[in-house]
Parts: sequence; structure tokens; C-alpha cells
Amino acid sequence: MKHNLSMLCDFYEFTMSNGYFKNGFYKQNVYFDVFFRKVPDNGGFAIAAGLEQVVEYINELHFSEDDIDFLRGKKIFDEEFLNFLRDFRFTGDIYAVPEGTPVFPNEPIMTVKAPAIEAQLIETYVLLALNHQTLIATKANRIVRAAQGNAVIEFGSRRAQGASGAVEGARAAYIGGCVGTACTLTDRIYGVPAGGTMAHSWIQMFDNEYDAFKAYCELYPDNPTLLVDTYNTLKSGVPNAIRVFREILLPQGKTECGIRLDSGDISYLSKKARKMLDEAGLQNCKITASNSLDEYLIRDLMMQGAKIDKFGVGERLITSSSSPVFGGVYKLVAVENNSGEIVPKIKVSENTAKITNPHFKKVYRYFDNESSKALADELCVYDEVVDDTRPRTIFDPNATWKTKTLTNFTAKELLVPVFKNGKCVYRLPSIQEIADYCREQVGLLWDEVKRFENPHTYYVDLSRKLYEIKNILLSVYGN
Amino acid sequence: MKHNLSMLCDFYEFTMSNGYFKNGFYKQNVYFDVFFRKVPDNGGFAIAAGLEQVVEYINELHFSEDDIDFLRGKKIFDEEFLNFLRDFRFTGDIYAVPEGTPVFPNEPIMTVKAPAIEAQLIETYVLLALNHQTLIATKANRIVRAAQGNAVIEFGSRRAQGASGAVEGARAAYIGGCVGTACTLTDRIYGVPAGGTMAHSWIQMFDNEYDAFKAYCELYPDNPTLLVDTYNTLKSGVPNAIRVFREILLPQGKTECGIRLDSGDISYLSKKARKMLDEAGLQNCKITASNSLDEYLIRDLMMQGAKIDKFGVGERLITSSSSPVFGGVYKLVAVENNSGEIVPKIKVSENTAKITNPHFKKVYRYFDNESSKALADELCVYDEVVDDTRPRTIFDPNATWKTKTLTNFTAKELLVPVFKNGKCVYRLPSIQEIADYCREQVGLLWDEVKRFENPHTYYVDLSRKLYEIKNILLSVYGN
Repeated sequence: MKHNLSMLCDFYEFTMSNGYFKNGFYKQNVYFDVFFRKVPDNGGFAIAAGLEQVVEYINELHFSEDDIDFLRGKKIFDEEFLNFLRDFRFTGDIYAVPEGTPVFPNEPIMTVKAPAIEAQLIETYVLLALNHQTLIATKANRIVRAAQGNAVIEFGSRRAQGASGAVEGARAAYIGGCVGTACTLTDRIYGVPAGGTMAHSWIQMFDNEYDAFKAYCELYPDNPTLLVDTYNTLKSGVPNAIRVFREILLPQGKTECGIRLDSGDISYLSKKARKMLDEAGLQNCKITASNSLDEYLIRDLMMQGAKIDKFGVGERLITSSSSPVFGGVYKLVAVENNSGEIVPKIKVSENTAKITNPHFKKVYRYFDNESSKALADELCVYDEVVDDTRPRTIFDPNATWKTKTLTNFTAKELLVPVFKNGKCVYRLPSIQEIADYCREQVGLLWDEVKRFENPHTYYVDLSRKLYEIKNILLSVYGN
Repeated sequence: MKHNLSMLCDFYEFTMSNGYFKNGFYKQNVYFDVFFRKVPDNGGFAIAAGLEQVVEYINELHFSEDDIDFLRGKKIFDEEFLNFLRDFRFTGDIYAVPEGTPVFPNEPIMTVKAPAIEAQLIETYVLLALNHQTLIATKANRIVRAAQGNAVIEFGSRRAQGASGAVEGARAAYIGGCVGTACTLTDRIYGVPAGGTMAHSWIQMFDNEYDAFKAYCELYPDNPTLLVDTYNTLKSGVPNAIRVFREILLPQGKTECGIRLDSGDISYLSKKARKMLDEAGLQNCKITASNSLDEYLIRDLMMQGAKIDKFGVGERLITSSSSPVFGGVYKLVAVENNSGEIVPKIKVSENTAKITNPHFKKVYRYFDNESSKALADELCVYDEVVDDTRPRTIFDPNATWKTKTLTNFTAKELLVPVFKNGKCVYRLPSIQEIADYCREQVGLLWDEVKRFENPHTYYVDLSRKLYEIKNILLSVYGN
């Protein structure tokens, strides 16, 4: 997609911006939060991802003369507004949680403070980038946890929803814990290690399977993986693989090799193949399994004692097929009035779940000093400061009598400055740093939050001050 | 995504191609089919889409010096092969069904004839482009059929799986029957009409809902649509909309306008709102509904007699959320031997559903001359010619005693030449032509094929000649 992503924008962002321009709101600072209401697959947490793409997008934000001509052709925009777009740049502030951070429903994962038009025009792409990669990182993390330490490789480009679905999806999968990808372009751009050996077509190009395996091992004697299910896995594929490994690799003193199972009863075939390989003295031969796997099937294979060392996961990861939408939203939470005062805003709704947490906020995460585990998150008004040297009582905003007093804890602010007055002030970590950070932070969650069935609902509470502001607004607008 | 899509390629395409190069296969012509095994959502047919993106990709296929350096860094590729990639272009032939064509499981929707390396290196992107857009066009067509003539607008960019998921997804949605999109970039690139009016943030920027509506209608008096659920749909949103329409639009002689319902009980609210609007003399005011709609919810709303004129459909369309993977595959079906003879190939599998239809093929679709409806498709060997002036007996390849003799029918070849010796020989139709063609062709399917529950399985048969070739190959390789 070679076109200007600044135009990847819902058309209503332009109609509203034109209106803000005409109504004099365009210099008025507003505050928008990105947050989500539900974790995909009914999981206990999500993994934030996509920030790097937002940073690139904001840095390149502009409208070309051709873009402006296109908008002019719609015959509804004011010429002064179109003129304004010519020099349009982002001049605001952005705060966000670092990529790889475990995040929870109803807390901001990004806050944008900017003049109204700027904040409005970036909505679509910001949501798209965060929603997409957070979805895939979250799914990858589930799959990786199901694999219990066995390697998971992302395989799904051909079934991805478009080119960026494949390329940035593979990036997000690596953040979530995959060890590599099949997508060469993701390696080229982001440094996620790409690998892969052969398709069925390789086998079919030769007169027989043995010749195909032999040619491959002669060419790639360093740890080749042979696909063994083209004709018959146990009668032909595994015996031919064993023969070739013994004829080609062992005489060179090489013992690292592998086979891949891609159809049939993977659990049964893996046990049989393992036995055949071991009896042939190929204890170092690894078994990779693929074929429409996901966290549920992998958990099931592990429970059956399948002899699998690596999992290749394709379509169900790259589309998060069992839960393919991450519902991040972008909601106005405050505006600055003419005297520079920050006025909190709320969106009421007939669906109470759609009521927003108002105001410009901070998010604190509290870690237990003894276990180092994460205890709770608390949303505070921007000017509140939590003193973690003193006990702090938090309460459930939906059941205020449920309180908990924290002692011996460390408070960490989750949102870090990314843009200040339009300049990027954030050092983008390497993909490896992000993946390491994710693993470390997921390790700080209790197992109860991480389980697949009925995970514990992690506390995301409101400070007393924020709770009271929200209630006042509800009493005014909530009818 | 500004990078070279030629590198959007599974890494094994390179390892295999390097091997073909070393083993002398690189000038050997091979034939690959793209086909799928199952229609998403258990539907009766899919809508082919994505061909235009494949054409663009093939036309631009190349590897830059930087790409080649990147591959060299992997230290497994032969320098002669890397040198070969420097001047790499596609020189083969491609046949495909036109975009917008209804297609069925197990028939080729594209056939690639090319030297082995070329055919292999394009696999990933070809599948990705066709799988993605066919998925979304198919879903859009289902949603549009459920809406029974009411307009459906694509709204989902912010929940799409990446930028191309949004932009090309909106293109595919238009092919499937949507009347427009919210995505400005899709309008800019493909000419799909983009529209949209306001978000909740517009309302919240003003002191009250009335002022927000008034400002909007003063700015856009031609058919404005007001979002009425920010505070309370029936107590505040609809009465304020009526007041503003009467104060601003009617005095200008304008009666075209609309409201949008985005939360709550859409069916109930639409009926109440319709009544209020009619009583206020606003019979021309249209009601748009949005909020996680899909074909099932729309069908349900229609059955309840909801008063909705337009449907805005977002995440469930742009990700095809109830069935988010289109499983198109790319399988070797024939190779040319040294004397130029086409040798059919088959892939056997422990999963019988994964056995391929071998050989370089033609696909005929037979239309009844009386009803003009599509009767059956037949896969034939490339050199067969069907004479539709004579009766033709077709049979079920899985139950050969089930036969049907067609008389008074017209045979149409589905696959058309797209590339010949690497040159594009296909005129790419406009997006409007594709959408019109789709509507017309879906109109030629029996209702039994189009229903959502247990659709009739449309006949996709093999010619006698092809059936016999497949059986010979199965007896050799099928063990």
C-alpha cells in the first residue's frame, strides 16, 4: 500500500474537522483516550502493540496537493479549511503504554492531547494500528502460553487480511512471544527472524519423495526440516526422511534436523514418528506440527502427550480467528476552555458498558514488593500523585464497599510521553526489547489472570477524586 | 506499507527456489491452481475478488539490491541464484475468474503457468490478495442480501486488521454490494464513494446536543445525518434532531436528512423514532443503524419490522468476524517435462478433503437457456472443448451413478487470460463494472444456493477425462 496513510481516515473526520474549523474550535485543546472494553477470547488481559506504527504515521502526517484536490472535489469543504490542511502537522502530546505491556479493559492505553482537528483526524489510523497489533500480540501470547515452552512460529501470511495484516501481524506475533515468522518482509523491515523450508510442491517437483528429500538435504545440510505428509506420513514420509538423514547428514557429522507434520492425526503421528526417529538414532531430530492450530488445539495436543517440539501456527493466529476484532475506541474525555482549564467530558449511553471514564488521566499499576506481582491498576486525575510509601485503599467503582488496602507496594505509571508538542520524545525500543519486556511483564501477572477459562478480573479502579468527578457528570448528563 | 511487496513472501519460497535453481528446474514450466475447499459461514458460494491487486503486484515484481543483500546475509543462498533474482521478472501465463464472479469449492479461481521459480515466488502474495478480498466480498454480499434492498455502508476501518485490511477490504465490500465506505483512502485510490457525518465527539465538543446539531446542519444543509444517541436517543437525540431539521432545513425548502442510531435496542428505537419523525412531518428523514451489525442481526431486525433505511456495518464486515479466514490454497497440478508434455500431478493426503484435482484445467459454467440460472460447473482438461449445442451428461465425482443430462444450455468458460508471457492481457474493469457484474451474476444463482442455512451444494463436477486421469494418479500415489 503505497498511498498516503494520512488519508486512511474515516470521511467523518474531515466533515467534523471542517466544522471545528468553521466554529473556531480548531485551536482548542482536547483530550482523547484509547481504551477497550473486552479482552478477545474472554481472556484476562491484552498485550499492547502497534505504537511504533502510530509514531511513524504521526511523523509522516500530511496532506498532499492531490489529497486536497480530491477533498475539494467533494464540494462540501471550506476553501480556508482546505488551505489549512496544506500545512497541517501534528502539534500535540501523546502518552501511551509501551508495546508489550499487559493491559486491561477500561483503562487508557493511549491519551492524545491536541487541538481538536488534529486529535480528530488521527482517530482512524491510531485505532486501526493499535487494534490490529494488540489483537495479534494478545492471541500470540495465548498460543505461546499453551505451548508451555515449545517454540511457536508464525506461519500465516497467505491467510492474513491484507498485506499489512501479514507484515505487521507477524511483528505483533513476535511481541506476543513467537520465536519467528515465515514472512520474509517482516524480517526485512522489523528484524523478526524469518525461516521456513519446503512446501508440498517441492516434493511433487521430483520423481519421488526420496529424491526430493535427498536434494534438499544436500543443499541445506544444516538443520533441514522435511515435510513428511505429501504421500503417506508413516509409510513413506518418515522412512524416507530417516533414510536421507542417515545417508546425507550423519556421514557429515550433522545430527540437527527435523520433520514437519501438516495433516492427519498430529498427536498419533507425532508419537509414532518420534519412536521411529529414536530407533533410527535420530534423537536430535525435532518434530514440527502445523495445520490450523491455535491455543486450544495446542493445549489439547500437550495434554495428549504429543511429541512435538515446535508449532507452526498460521491462519488462526494471523487473523485471531476465534476472536478477530479488538474493540479499542477513541473517546473525548476532556476539553480545555478559553482560560486553559481542563473540563472533563463524558459520553453517556443507553448501553451502560459504553459510558466513558472522563478527564485527563494517569494510570498507575501497583506491584506487590514481596511477590513482585501486579496487584491492581488505578485511574487517577492527571494532577494526582500516588505516594507508594504509604498504604493506599482502592475500591471497586461498581461496588464501592469492596475495598482493599495496599501496603508494601510499588506504584508505576503506565502511560509514558511519546509526543510532546508534535515532536517524538520516545526512544522506540527494538523488537527484541519489546518481546523481552512483554515476557517479563506477563511474568508479573498472577496465574489466575492468565488462565483461559474464567480468568480473574484484574482490578482497574478509579481514584476517589476521579470517581466523584464521574458521578457529578453522570448526574448532569445521565438523565 | 511502503516496502517492496515482492518480499512479502514466505521464506520457504526462497529456499525452494534456490533449490529449483540448483537442480535445473528453473526453466521448467509448472502449473499451479488457486482454489478453496469451504465457503466461509457455511455459505453456498463465494465472490471472487483481489485480482486487480495481483495484477499490480505481478507488474511490479522485482528484487532490489537491498533485498538481495538481505537474502545474502542469510548465508544459505547460492550467489548465482541471488544474481538470477537481480533480473527476475514474471514471464508466465495467468488465467483467473473475473472479480465479482460467484465461485465454488474445489474449482480453480486462478491458474498460474510459469517456470518453477516464478510460480513459487508469487505464491504467498497471490493467496493473500485473493483470500483477503474474496473473504470480504463474500461477507459483504451476505450482509447486502440480508438487508433486502436497504443500503449497506462499510464502516470498519478502525477495526480492520491493518491498513490494507481497511483499504482493500472496503474495495472488496463494494464489489460484494455495499453502496459506499467510510474510508477516504479507498475512495481516493479506487473510487468507492466515501461518506460519513459525525462521531459522538462532535456532540461533546458543544455545550449541548442542540447546539451541536444546529452547527452541523448550518454547515451541511444537504442531507445531514445526525447521531442521536450521545445522551438519550428518544428523550434528547431525536427531539433535538427534529427541532434542528425544522428550524434549519425546512425553511430552506430542504427535506432530505437523516438520523443515526448507534446503541440501545435498535429495533425498538427505530420504530419510536420513525413515528416521532413522521409526526413532525419529516417523512423524508432516513434512519441509519449501526453498532456491531452483521447479516444475522440485520435479518433479525428486518423480521422485527425495524424502520431502518440504511445499515452502517463495521467490524463484523471488515474482518468477516464470524468466519475470518478464507482458505484458498495454491497447489501444483502439472509440470511440463523436457519434451514439453504436460504431466498431471496430484497431492494425496491423509485428509481426503486435501486431495487435489490434478492437471492444467478449464472451468465451464453451464447456464440454463430458459431460466438463465447457473446449473453446474465442470472442470475439464485444458484441451477439452464443450459443445453446448449438444446434450451433455455430467456426474458427481464422489458418487458417479448420480448423473444429470443438460440440454438447452449455454457453456461459459470461467477462467480468462490475465497474463500471457509475463504481459498483462486483461483490461481491468472499473470498480463499478465489477460491482454491477457481481450483482448480475449472483442474480443467476438459484435461491437454494443463496440461502444462509444449509444452502444447496452447487455442482462442481469433473469431466470424464479428468476423472479418469485423477483416478489413475490416485491408484499410483494413493497407496
